Amino acid sequence: MNRPTFSDAHLAARAWFLERSVAAGFEARVDAAGNHSAVLPSRFAEAPTLLLGSHLDTVPNGGRFDGALGVVAALEVLRTTQDGHVDLPYTLEAIDFTDEEGTLVGLLGSRALAGALTPDVLRAPRGGHDALLHGLARAGLTATRLADARRDPRTIAGYLELHIEQGPVLENEHVDIGIVSTIVGSRSFNLTFKGTAGHAGTTPMDARRDAGLAAATFVVGVHETVLRDFPNCVATVGRVTFEPGAFNVIAGEAQVALEFRSADPSRLDALEDALVFRAREAETLGHTVEVEPVGRWEPVPLDTTVRTAIAHVAEALGLSTAELASGAGHDAQALAQITPSGMIFVPSVDGVSHQPGEQTAWDDCLNGANILLGTTLELAEVFAG
Amino acid sequence: MNRPTFSDAHLAARAWFLERSVAAGFEARVDAAGNHSAVLPSRFAEAPTLLLGSHLDTVPNGGRFDGALGVVAALEVLRTTQDGHVDLPYTLEAIDFTDEEGTLVGLLGSRALAGALTPDVLRAPRGGHDALLHGLARAGLTATRLADARRDPRTIAGYLELHIEQGPVLENEHVDIGIVSTIVGSRSFNLTFKGTAGHAGTTPMDARRDAGLAAATFVVGVHETVLRDFPNCVATVGRVTFEPGAFNVIAGEAQVALEFRSADPSRLDALEDALVFRAREAETLGHTVEVEPVGRWEPVPLDTTVRTAIAHVAEALGLSTAELASGAGHDAQALAQITPSGMIFVPSVDGVSHQPGEQTAWDDCLNGANILLGTTLELAEVFAG
Repeated sequence: MNRPTFSDAHLAARAWFLERSVAAGFEARVDAAGNHSAVLPSRFAEAPTLLLGSHLDTVPNGGRFDGALGVVAALEVLRTTQDGHVDLPYTLEAIDFTDEEGTLVGLLGSRALAGALTPDVLRAPRGGHDALLHGLARAGLTATRLADARRDPRTIAGYLELHIEQGPVLENEHVDIGIVSTIVGSRSFNLTFKGTAGHAGTTPMDARRDAGLAAATFVVGVHETVLRDFPNCVATVGRVTFEPGAFNVIAGEAQVALEFRSADPSRLDALEDALVFRAREAETLGHTVEVEPVGRWEPVPLDTTVRTAIAHVAEALGLSTAELASGAGHDAQALAQITPSGMIFVPSVDGVSHQPGEQTAWDDCLNGANILLGTTLELAEVFAG
Repeated sequence: MNRPTFSDAHLAARAWFLERSVAAGFEARVDAAGNHSAVLPSRFAEAPTLLLGSHLDTVPNGGRFDGALGVVAALEVLRTTQDGHVDLPYTLEAIDFTDEEGTLVGLLGSRALAGALTPDVLRAPRGGHDALLHGLARAGLTATRLADARRDPRTIAGYLELHIEQGPVLENEHVDIGIVSTIVGSRSFNLTFKGTAGHAGTTPMDARRDAGLAAATFVVGVHETVLRDFPNCVATVGRVTFEPGAFNVIAGEAQVALEFRSADPSRLDALEDALVFRAREAETLGHTVEVEPVGRWEPVPLDTTVRTAIAHVAEALGLSTAELASGAGHDAQALAQITPSGMIFVPSVDGVSHQPGEQTAWDDCLNGANILLGTTLELAEVFAG
């Protein structure tokens, strides 16, 4: 699956979701952030909305389940509820959030809906400003109008998201359903190492200021530091670019995309200090080092009432559960700021995600969808009580 | 200067050279490899041709003197010879060789002229096959016809090339003119490290096979190995690419452009062994490593008769000289295979090249052009003798 935000494949998947929603008899809705929804209204006037959703975009060359499972399961919950003529005290809305993965910004749609898409976020978008404007234009959207997607929290009853775990815990512990306790925090940075470009044949090794070497030394240093000093944390350099980028030119500049995560806010601070320190070691060799913050997500605990409801439903269905932190970010972390939110995880084969080998067994998909449906019904009683 | 082969800027520079040639009254010539020439025919029938030349393409974001100095000086030598009504025993040809720097292939035009552009070379071009076909099409050229640019060596009297040193030796030793003894050999490789792509948040550090980390470890290892074990050799990683290349995805694949050089063929063999060994260390960590040879240039000694002629001319003009090896590759190394060839170096400020700061003083440019002219005249007597 290669559906970066607003790529042709992503636009096609988005259109497919709306078509299926309309075909099932639901009202289709598109907001100013490009979020697509299917709406099943409550018969009670002024009823708030329970959102069920996830995202249809993928990382480049990603997998089939990350995001898409939660969107199609949400739509199926609406269809099943409609078919069963169930009266709920809330309107149900299956929602496909825009740009969860961060091709452009990250959690673009869910943050817009939660009123958290500040001008600051749009000023330094993760994929660059041109990519943002170009991408939005492809979907008929406008940067200045994105924030109009904000919803009044009083109109939202809660948020549920079914998602694959994307890690190995559930599989290793033979657990059917994960109940997310916390979504880990993460920070990302663009680092730029500047040395001196030069001729690869005529510049002696000891006279070089090779920005590529400085960047490579940093990549190795990140791995060493985290393995040694930061158990239960992760740090990743997923992209490195050398400029000008030719066989016969010593790199004058190298750019490094750094990201790290922890469930503990104080560890995030310590990680940032340690990794920026490692980057600045290149300054002792005459390089310039620029550190530009790109993304910052605090750890987000999810709603305990919703977690308890998920556990009850699983128990009733005879499925085993475990509470666990999510190492991945999710739209739920934006929604949790404004409404009781919960996440249901199903196992990932070999813990693999963000690549084509991503796999979840059909029975696990079915279990997850049933828990999503059951929790939707269960919450009606909890909220009523 | 940003004139990669057949970029808009390069095509404009090429057209400019032909216009200036025609404006000066010379016959303009374009061969099947896209080499552009200005020809001043000898009045002697059947006279062979003395080629004077260099190249107008640059590395990405390169300098103003690398290549261009030799082309414009060659044209000026033709103009001066014509203005002086000098009878020479050879036709003079100022030539701008195609793709010296290797955006597409490297020494594309000079090798084609020398009959050394084998199908093997075109099968794995340095810039990739698509770039080659696309680039050639932009200049109205065809890959299958490139070899038609071959000239019969019996029609060539010799080759002279004026070029900036691109290194610090002449400046450091306060020498006016460098006479190139040998052009160092070089080898280049595309290395591919394959690990496992995965989610940057959910894959524990000790469970990763991060291809980016493997590539970075190699880059650091190359520098260590060459500094420690290979004095007077250079090795460069000028480009690294991570796939898929996102903040939140562990790299599943990393590509590394490696190049190394030495004046000594046996050191090239030893360097290749040592650096491939370092790359294969990643296999012990579960990575796959692919090593694809891209370029291979044996060290090329230049013609002693021509070197002596250059030295005589410099002495007559009161300019100091030194013999030195060229750490950079040049069209002369292709020409030296078929005809007596010589290179004249002028100093580079701070030894800097392949970047915008590249500089050579005007007086040094003038000295170089006068030596090129003088050697053109001197060789007439040497060859006659």
